[in-house]
Amino acid sequence: MHPQELAKFIDHTALTAEKTAQDIIKLCDEAIENQFWSVCINPCYIPLAKEKLAATNVKICTVIGFPLGANLTSVKAFEAQESIKAGAQEIDMVINVGWIKSGEWDKVRSDIQVVLQACNGTLLKVILETCLLTPDEIVKACEICRDLKVGFVKTSTGFNKDGATVEDVALMRQTVGDKLGVKASGGIRDTETAMAMINAGATRIGASAGIAIIEGLQDNSGGY
Amino acid sequence: MHPQELAKFIDHTALTAEKTAQDIIKLCDEAIENQFWSVCINPCYIPLAKEKLAATNVKICTVIGFPLGANLTSVKAFEAQESIKAGAQEIDMVINVGWIKSGEWDKVRSDIQVVLQACNGTLLKVILETCLLTPDEIVKACEICRDLKVGFVKTSTGFNKDGATVEDVALMRQTVGDKLGVKASGGIRDTETAMAMINAGATRIGASAGIAIIEGLQDNSGGY
Repeated sequence: MHPQELAKFIDHTALTAEKTAQDIIKLCDEAIENQFWSVCINPCYIPLAKEKLAATNVKICTVIGFPLGANLTSVKAFEAQESIKAGAQEIDMVINVGWIKSGEWDKVRSDIQVVLQACNGTLLKVILETCLLTPDEIVKACEICRDLKVGFVKTSTGFNKDGATVEDVALMRQTVGDKLGVKASGGIRDTETAMAMINAGATRIGASAGIAIIEGLQDNSGGY
Repeated sequence: MHPQELAKFIDHTALTAEKTAQDIIKLCDEAIENQFWSVCINPCYIPLAKEKLAATNVKICTVIGFPLGANLTSVKAFEAQESIKAGAQEIDMVINVGWIKSGEWDKVRSDIQVVLQACNGTLLKVILETCLLTPDEIVKACEICRDLKVGFVKTSTGFNKDGATVEDVALMRQTVGDKLGVKASGGIRDTETAMAMINAGATRIGASAGIAIIEGLQDNSGGY
């Protein structure tokens, strides 16, 4: 794979609480320079990123109900709407893990469905937080997402016990088939890990280490 | 201090993503039995807690923009309103740490002010996430909260690098004076730590270990 090709898989990500305006400007500059697919940022920085990324191909991705997913459904929907209004072009929402663990699958489904409606055509990714789920729960969550026809299922917030694993990505791909995207995120810090995720079925990579990931490919051309 | 007196300091807390309905029911039962001040829960469980706590003195406290604080201000305000409508009686919002670190103090102030207006008289606590702030930033954030006349300043989400320290609680109390409450939260797991926070100026303790905290007092009556 060419570095430019790999760059198009990457949501260049900065989500910790202490990120400054300056950090977001740098993130945007890096995304433009390396031609990453998007920047993935907290909602409060959407207006700034919109300014920086005007007249470029780099998209703005933001996070909803992040990272716990334990909000009221009405609030997740409103956050999606307000984020889109501010300039977000992709929406990564966190599933309600507590409701999954409570066996309240109707609420889990409705939570996603209401946010999907609020997105009104804007791409929606559903973060499963796979490190907290059993394989059966991952399959069930993926089936709901597939049936509702969201854009992507995504592994992880990066704020919990663990991130993406090759096994989870493969299971998600197997369950959703080829109509949905699969985003691997959390703990992906080098080329080898990113390529393993793509080989397992990932069509997007969420990472703060995007530059290291594509540079590693340049050092190893033909290696992957 | 008597255990019943100490219990009234405690927001009995369960905020991790995987908490089930059953966990919240247990939390409410424990709060009733031990006469804690409140349960502190994620917004999605407010309706359940309202049912369980009807006709008791235990209040419902919830968290807004939690735990990153990096939402759009309009979304924090809406989340406060929706939570109050659902039954929340105390609102713990996370300050925008990124804006503090960017020196955007006007935005920090406005973020709090808009949520305070949305609370419309319901008690508002502002979580500073002190582990990410310098002493100067803690003082400045406390001055804003004091000037806006919010209900409490609160140390921590419990989801970042560190929780409450005696030094930070003392600095917060010194800055806000005696008109505001100070809530110490994050990493408070025993009686000794809780009493140290209270002696430093805390008027509320956020903890998942509330039962251990008051039981430790019973074992040490007269020790504090």
